[in-house]
Amino acid sequence: MNVPVSATLAANEEIDRRRRHGQRIVNLAFGEAGLPVHPALRDALARAAGGNAYGPVAGSVALREAAAGYWSRRGIAAHPDLIVGGPGSKALLYGLLLALGGDVVLSRPSWVSYAAQARLVGVHPIMIPPPPGEGGVPDPERVSTAVAAARARGRTVTSLLVTLPDNPTGRLARPETVRRLAALARELDLTIISDEIYRDLVHDPAATFLSPAEIAPERTVVTTGLSKSLALGGWRIGVARLPETGLSEAPHASNPHASNLHGRLLGVASEIWSSPAAPVQHAAAYAFDEPAELVRRVAASRRLHGIVARAVAEHFTKAGAHLDDPQGGFYLYPGIAGFTGSAELAAVLLDRHGVAVLPGTAFGDSPDAPRVRVATSQLYGESDEQRTAALHAEDPLELPWIAASLRHLEEALAGLRIFG
Amino acid sequence: MNVPVSATLAANEEIDRRRRHGQRIVNLAFGEAGLPVHPALRDALARAAGGNAYGPVAGSVALREAAAGYWSRRGIAAHPDLIVGGPGSKALLYGLLLALGGDVVLSRPSWVSYAAQARLVGVHPIMIPPPPGEGGVPDPERVSTAVAAARARGRTVTSLLVTLPDNPTGRLARPETVRRLAALARELDLTIISDEIYRDLVHDPAATFLSPAEIAPERTVVTTGLSKSLALGGWRIGVARLPETGLSEAPHASNPHASNLHGRLLGVASEIWSSPAAPVQHAAAYAFDEPAELVRRVAASRRLHGIVARAVAEHFTKAGAHLDDPQGGFYLYPGIAGFTGSAELAAVLLDRHGVAVLPGTAFGDSPDAPRVRVATSQLYGESDEQRTAALHAEDPLELPWIAASLRHLEEALAGLRIFG
Repeated sequence: MNVPVSATLAANEEIDRRRRHGQRIVNLAFGEAGLPVHPALRDALARAAGGNAYGPVAGSVALREAAAGYWSRRGIAAHPDLIVGGPGSKALLYGLLLALGGDVVLSRPSWVSYAAQARLVGVHPIMIPPPPGEGGVPDPERVSTAVAAARARGRTVTSLLVTLPDNPTGRLARPETVRRLAALARELDLTIISDEIYRDLVHDPAATFLSPAEIAPERTVVTTGLSKSLALGGWRIGVARLPETGLSEAPHASNPHASNLHGRLLGVASEIWSSPAAPVQHAAAYAFDEPAELVRRVAASRRLHGIVARAVAEHFTKAGAHLDDPQGGFYLYPGIAGFTGSAELAAVLLDRHGVAVLPGTAFGDSPDAPRVRVATSQLYGESDEQRTAALHAEDPLELPWIAASLRHLEEALAGLRIFG
Repeated sequence: MNVPVSATLAANEEIDRRRRHGQRIVNLAFGEAGLPVHPALRDALARAAGGNAYGPVAGSVALREAAAGYWSRRGIAAHPDLIVGGPGSKALLYGLLLALGGDVVLSRPSWVSYAAQARLVGVHPIMIPPPPGEGGVPDPERVSTAVAAARARGRTVTSLLVTLPDNPTGRLARPETVRRLAALARELDLTIISDEIYRDLVHDPAATFLSPAEIAPERTVVTTGLSKSLALGGWRIGVARLPETGLSEAPHASNPHASNLHGRLLGVASEIWSSPAAPVQHAAAYAFDEPAELVRRVAASRRLHGIVARAVAEHFTKAGAHLDDPQGGFYLYPGIAGFTGSAELAAVLLDRHGVAVLPGTAFGDSPDAPRVRVATSQLYGESDEQRTAALHAEDPLELPWIAASLRHLEEALAGLRIFG
């Protein structure tokens, strides 16, 4: 058991270190939302500061009812008894992989922690590239063959994990792809885990969001949290919506791993983290109820993420990089020819040009593919004041600190001598 | 993988259910400190409500410096770089077992989650009864043989876990026992994990506290949290003090599992929970700095726990139960003859007498031993007002709600027809 610190978190600490040593760095490495806490959420946390009971493992009734309402408003059947809260959706994803206890089918590339968690649990990630132009979903054409091959080798494969929209690619899977994966999951008897933490940050008006939970609610777990849409990463709160089969004690028809998933997830949760922090639960219940001021905040954030992600994408495109337009979250995933791989590309960008990104290898991509993940949300500013200004600016690209970072980036890319 | 919800947390939910159905229950099952949040801690949390950055995996510098100071004041060498914070010491204990990756020597009985965590990690708990009259430590006389036998069967044994003072027995290991276990750990090349979450609640003035970290600092991890001493269970914050070998990248002389334990724990932490909740970290840093008002609060809590635990112990003793005097925390562990085992005893107490306790089996004790864990901290009251009154009462036993619960308990025990 030897797992390095999560690549994104490690990168952030490295950037802080270099800045303390005086290096000027444009931080495009860290997937933090980069926006302040909404005052209503600060107040909700402060009001709940007297809450010190452990409370239910799954989280308070108020939190679970609010989360069920959140999903119901999005066309996903959800019942408070089948909601489980945790200290971040990351913890819930780990708990789910541990409770499911089998290999998991992933997209390549995909978020750094999925494969690392699978390894911690002692199962294999089965990584399959997405269909061309998509991200966060394994290509349906290749899933059956890969699962059959793993099973023929004696592996137990229990789940398929998708990210809608995706980190690192910033792309949203097409509804048709989601439908085909849901059908495949039924055919192959896989539980679908749909990580929808960036769902409310789809900024491409042409993109259509379809959750596998709308197609195969009986076998889909949906996870989300408040780290991205409301910038509460440091608060550590996430929720999972479990399928109804999860309530049953009876073994699932053909996949015993899916039976009583709810009970097994609670067992894991109770032995690792007990419950999410009580004051944070209180504020999260308020947030998942979606009061008007928070809906407006999420809308403003989505607009800002879209404007800045597209501006950064344009700089990469102009410099000759290959990339698909970002559709959600605050990420893009450009490929730049002329490098031996993503490690070299990321190192050159950081060491010579002061631009921090993450190499595609962190996301399981092929080492010789010169692709990097660019996170655009650290550009909004260094202080709450700058970030608030970015959130409310008609044209955030004209704010001096954002404009300066974009110029730095443009010069860096010009200096890369791109051939692709 | 099939782990039931942690016995204590499940018992609490069951008691709530029965109370909603009108049953009158004296709750002696749940190990929650039963006291309000100190106003200074509520203020500290509220002041930090704007903190939404993920921050370092190990926790903020302020938290780690405060925790190092806390331990240094107790004679335990600790460096901020070797402190790791997490969402509860429970999560840290899980992370340590996962990072160490071998079987763990435990006391039988011991806290419900140790053995359950070992099973989640896929290792074996090796459970050894404590020396007569002690608790929380395996009998040194039997450790070498048990470890040798496990190793002869091909098992990897990497750690020895002690609880000072103990849950469930309420007993504190004698310094001589701690010294012998530290020597054994060196001989057998085991990492010691010393769970000292109840350390500041030792209420027996005759008890002498010795941490294995004072004897074998190079191989002892100490964990603690604020759930017990400051009643912040629902806030989910704990810290671990790692040994210096943990910093080294070089393999440990004879036990590779101990090498870079710090790095491996951070790897696990970063992939499961990222960091403790930022506002909670801020308040915890304040608490571990031990300002005078919190020192006074802990002292008042310790006094209350001691008075009530001893009063409850007297009732059990009068009724003919066998038990050792409680020394720390808010627990006792009486044995009552005339029952087939702890399950029967606990069921009779709950169903016929409305007294909720946990059977010894929850702590790994032998099913035919009629011993139960009695937690006395839920007697302080149902509201913050009652609990505050209990904290400040010259004689808390005279408060009507506490007196009523003790009478209920006395009658229940009289009704048990005790033979022992």
